[in-house]
Amino acid sequence: MKAVPFNKITLGGYWKNRFDINKSATIPTVYKRFTETGRFDAFKFEWKEGDPNRPHIFWDSDIAKWMEAVAYAITYCPDKQLEEIVDGVVDLIEKNQDENGYFNIYFTVCEPENRFTNRMAHELYCAGHLTEAAVAYYNATGKKKFLTLMEKYLEHIEKVFIKEDSAEFCTPGHEEIELALVKLYDCTGNERYLEMSKHFVDVRGTRQKDEDSPYYISHAYDQTHMPVREMKIATGHSVRAVYLYCAMADLAKRLGDKELLAACERLFDSIADKQMYITGGIGSTSYGEAFTEDYDLPNDVAYSETCASIGLALFARRMSLIDADSKYADAAETAIYNCALAGVSLDGNSFFYVNPLEINLERYRKNKTYYQYKGNLLTERVEVFDCSCCPPNIARMIASIGDFLYTYDDETVYVHHYFESEAEFEGIKITQNTEYPNNGKIKITASGMAGKTLAVRIPGWAESYTIDAPVAKTEKGYAYIKIDSDEKEICLDFPMECRLVMANPAVEADIGRVALCRGPLVYCAEKLDNGETPLNNLSLSASLNAKLEFNNEMQAYTVEADGFEDEAFGSLYRSYSPAKKARRIRFIPYFAFANRGESDMLIWFRI
Amino acid sequence: MKAVPFNKITLGGYWKNRFDINKSATIPTVYKRFTETGRFDAFKFEWKEGDPNRPHIFWDSDIAKWMEAVAYAITYCPDKQLEEIVDGVVDLIEKNQDENGYFNIYFTVCEPENRFTNRMAHELYCAGHLTEAAVAYYNATGKKKFLTLMEKYLEHIEKVFIKEDSAEFCTPGHEEIELALVKLYDCTGNERYLEMSKHFVDVRGTRQKDEDSPYYISHAYDQTHMPVREMKIATGHSVRAVYLYCAMADLAKRLGDKELLAACERLFDSIADKQMYITGGIGSTSYGEAFTEDYDLPNDVAYSETCASIGLALFARRMSLIDADSKYADAAETAIYNCALAGVSLDGNSFFYVNPLEINLERYRKNKTYYQYKGNLLTERVEVFDCSCCPPNIARMIASIGDFLYTYDDETVYVHHYFESEAEFEGIKITQNTEYPNNGKIKITASGMAGKTLAVRIPGWAESYTIDAPVAKTEKGYAYIKIDSDEKEICLDFPMECRLVMANPAVEADIGRVALCRGPLVYCAEKLDNGETPLNNLSLSASLNAKLEFNNEMQAYTVEADGFEDEAFGSLYRSYSPAKKARRIRFIPYFAFANRGESDMLIWFRI
Repeated sequence: MKAVPFNKITLGGYWKNRFDINKSATIPTVYKRFTETGRFDAFKFEWKEGDPNRPHIFWDSDIAKWMEAVAYAITYCPDKQLEEIVDGVVDLIEKNQDENGYFNIYFTVCEPENRFTNRMAHELYCAGHLTEAAVAYYNATGKKKFLTLMEKYLEHIEKVFIKEDSAEFCTPGHEEIELALVKLYDCTGNERYLEMSKHFVDVRGTRQKDEDSPYYISHAYDQTHMPVREMKIATGHSVRAVYLYCAMADLAKRLGDKELLAACERLFDSIADKQMYITGGIGSTSYGEAFTEDYDLPNDVAYSETCASIGLALFARRMSLIDADSKYADAAETAIYNCALAGVSLDGNSFFYVNPLEINLERYRKNKTYYQYKGNLLTERVEVFDCSCCPPNIARMIASIGDFLYTYDDETVYVHHYFESEAEFEGIKITQNTEYPNNGKIKITASGMAGKTLAVRIPGWAESYTIDAPVAKTEKGYAYIKIDSDEKEICLDFPMECRLVMANPAVEADIGRVALCRGPLVYCAEKLDNGETPLNNLSLSASLNAKLEFNNEMQAYTVEADGFEDEAFGSLYRSYSPAKKARRIRFIPYFAFANRGESDMLIWFRI
Repeated sequence: MKAVPFNKITLGGYWKNRFDINKSATIPTVYKRFTETGRFDAFKFEWKEGDPNRPHIFWDSDIAKWMEAVAYAITYCPDKQLEEIVDGVVDLIEKNQDENGYFNIYFTVCEPENRFTNRMAHELYCAGHLTEAAVAYYNATGKKKFLTLMEKYLEHIEKVFIKEDSAEFCTPGHEEIELALVKLYDCTGNERYLEMSKHFVDVRGTRQKDEDSPYYISHAYDQTHMPVREMKIATGHSVRAVYLYCAMADLAKRLGDKELLAACERLFDSIADKQMYITGGIGSTSYGEAFTEDYDLPNDVAYSETCASIGLALFARRMSLIDADSKYADAAETAIYNCALAGVSLDGNSFFYVNPLEINLERYRKNKTYYQYKGNLLTERVEVFDCSCCPPNIARMIASIGDFLYTYDDETVYVHHYFESEAEFEGIKITQNTEYPNNGKIKITASGMAGKTLAVRIPGWAESYTIDAPVAKTEKGYAYIKIDSDEKEICLDFPMECRLVMANPAVEADIGRVALCRGPLVYCAEKLDNGETPLNNLSLSASLNAKLEFNNEMQAYTVEADGFEDEAFGSLYRSYSPAKKARRIRFIPYFAFANRGESDMLIWFRI
């Protein structure tokens, strides 16, 4: 299968709206905050001890991701001003790059004596993000300079890490360069980069030099605890993990490496079947921002980093390119529409790093023990973080969201997602008319596909569906439809009833509870919509009797449903006699929470 | 009302068994551990920098409480060896007491230059416990030396803190001396001690010198945030708080001080109506070992210190002496039979400091965030702690448990609790025959009471009762029975059905859950009795269908009841469809948990 890249797709509807906010608000906001915090100036390499805004080891990557987002955005919407900013950064990279190709702000300006000595210092991670940005910028503009500079740097990296093996470690403490190298291979066709990626992936977890280098928490934290091909369980820092798995999937596909593919399949299942929040969030503890163990998915202390859910979607997308199994696009859809989108405010100007699945302000306020475990939890989005990986990451995801839509081979075009959109590639034109994710009706118009097959994904959340065309077969969640005419219109209907979802009883945090969902969207209730009663004193009625109302700002439906409220009584304890009064409970999509000030929030309700 | 002291009461049944274990195991074990850790040797005042076992600021009080327990125990059971140990300590106190009367190990041996400079350094707390011990030992043996030494010390304290006001603080950072001074007043009749107690109580929260002295967390932590007479809410370190409230109640009674009594009533209600665990434990956070806010009663992070529940029982007992309202004896009963007794193992040899209401080993193990908040939680009792206030405290409570039983005035004898026992006082003899707390049938035989009234407490837990004698009136939870003959037999029956209790819906931790109780005992389930299923996957059936079995080691019934187990399924999430299978759940009394190795434990079950 091949991917249909985002630049072949014109967005409308839901994602056009998201794209516009991203372009008009998120990209400028992140630029402004990165400027104010000295991240752009850092590329001048003029910082000296005593100056403000000491460069951080990952600032290169923050700007790189922002440039990558810009590259995607200007593909759709040319913007001279943004292009000039990127060109300016590229000029500074050229100016300040070492003669040998090395480029890193922190390890040139702050600790030049320590290059490639500290495995945990993000040098290769930064190199990877700069490479991704360079590829994206070349694809967007045809300008080759950035790409050339990065190729020079990568030649140096190849020399130090592979030919000479002279660095003090063998693999990066934070994966990223592996998948970037594959992108560079795809862009240039130069197999050397594929080899380099394979080297970094296969050497991982096998070398004493890495074992001996400084590490944080454990080798499982950065996936150096075993050779990747033997891995069965997703472990450690969840962003690191999924970036590695992305590269493994990339290599498995390009090299036809079945062993690597089998590892990817195991790791994907380990996440999706046992370690993924209902929102597509991953990472159950702030301690190491990490996976913990199967079924350990606490809601209030969820780490569920925005970048991790984006990474999960990217990993799933790569798997969809290898195997048309709808579980991959299901996971991508869940992660994108829920956890990832919760990472940015509706106006595009502020961000979550950690995306909790429950906020209980009183609990944190009342009891210092809980206040302590609250850890990194923010209850309102902020404009920028010290560790600001997420804002530009969500910006680049939204700007290139079309990447997720289609894959194809000679016979079949796979429709993985449903966006109001037009796609044109290889003589094929596919139009989708839909209000998805708010309505499960999709009209697909396919031209230039006579004799081919259209395989449409039946979303995992759909309890029933209708397709107004003969379905040749249904396999792994895709309905295969033979296209018999040059201009074919097919109507799909995945009825979007509000539904209640329960978690596996092994998920302690959700025992006896349900979540309200509709289509791909997970819903939550905010206290500010529901009066003074603590959210945990509300419970849902199985007969939801749901009423929907479209909310323009959220571009989604809010839901009102039947439930109960625990009735108050005077004493601290009394003999058991249930006392509830019926009431309505108001829900909003999870992605839209915390957009109207600080409030308690709950997804999982007693039933 | 007057108290009937424990030495007028002969125990049988349940408490005789507890007393015997206390005497034969707990008192020797604590002696052994205190010897091994250098606490006894510290009284020699020979410690020098560099030596092991540096004396701690509260070691005087550890030994004092142990001596107090010995004094009570030898009242029933003379024991030359124990008496010699106490005499030896008293000799060392005499030998090492300052000429001016001052006695404190730490501030003589380690920091002699800092006497009475650090409000948080437990000097007056130690003085208080030594005084309690001296009174108890005098009452037990008639030996006056210890008492005389303490009176000399208290004269010095009066001089420094009251006459000269020359210490660097005005009131102790840890209350205790206030109630000890009242005991000394009761013992000696010397009003000076009552005055001193009143001084320390009334000065509290009013003096700048205390405000300015070093403090821990906040002035609310040690109840210096306002004058005690204005207090409405129990706050701060819960042991400190209830020791203060004990002294306030003592003074209110002896001085007929209505303002102080009103404060005591408010503070008691603040605890019993809003801040008390179902076990009678208090203190909802390890942060300051403190009360938090109304209805904040998390189970897994409960602090619920043994000493605090003992202190609550002591406070409630003092209130029972002022006002025959059964809420006081109800709280004392709950605290004694549940939280306090959980503080010691069934064999009497090991102890809990913190008494959690839930243990979930997997939760702590899986997720470091929870592991961090687990804080001080021990999941198995240990022989001694660095901070070893609780072991000798439970020892002295059990040794003098008879103190709780009766109060009387000219007209009426109040029966606050039900113990198999004989009491003789003021020409009256009362025999109780009962298997309480395991059976609610009590036969009371009263002699020498013709013309008087016996007021028997109707336990708060009793949903019905029968009394085979005419009840003249029922008031504030006591049934008043006129005794018409010189030898009167009355049978009470408080049927002990297993019952389900729910918490106020404002208690977030217990929402949607119930606790199984029987009589005064709160029950819990341990995982080791219930198979591999996590306890939170079990739920109780409202129709309990309970089966009881007497357990000799626990001296109580275990219970088997109807419940359900969540049925496993494969996927991580699925559409809601309840799936439970019926099963039995096995419970033991809470006080008996953690006696068979480490295990998960749960009190509050879904219903």
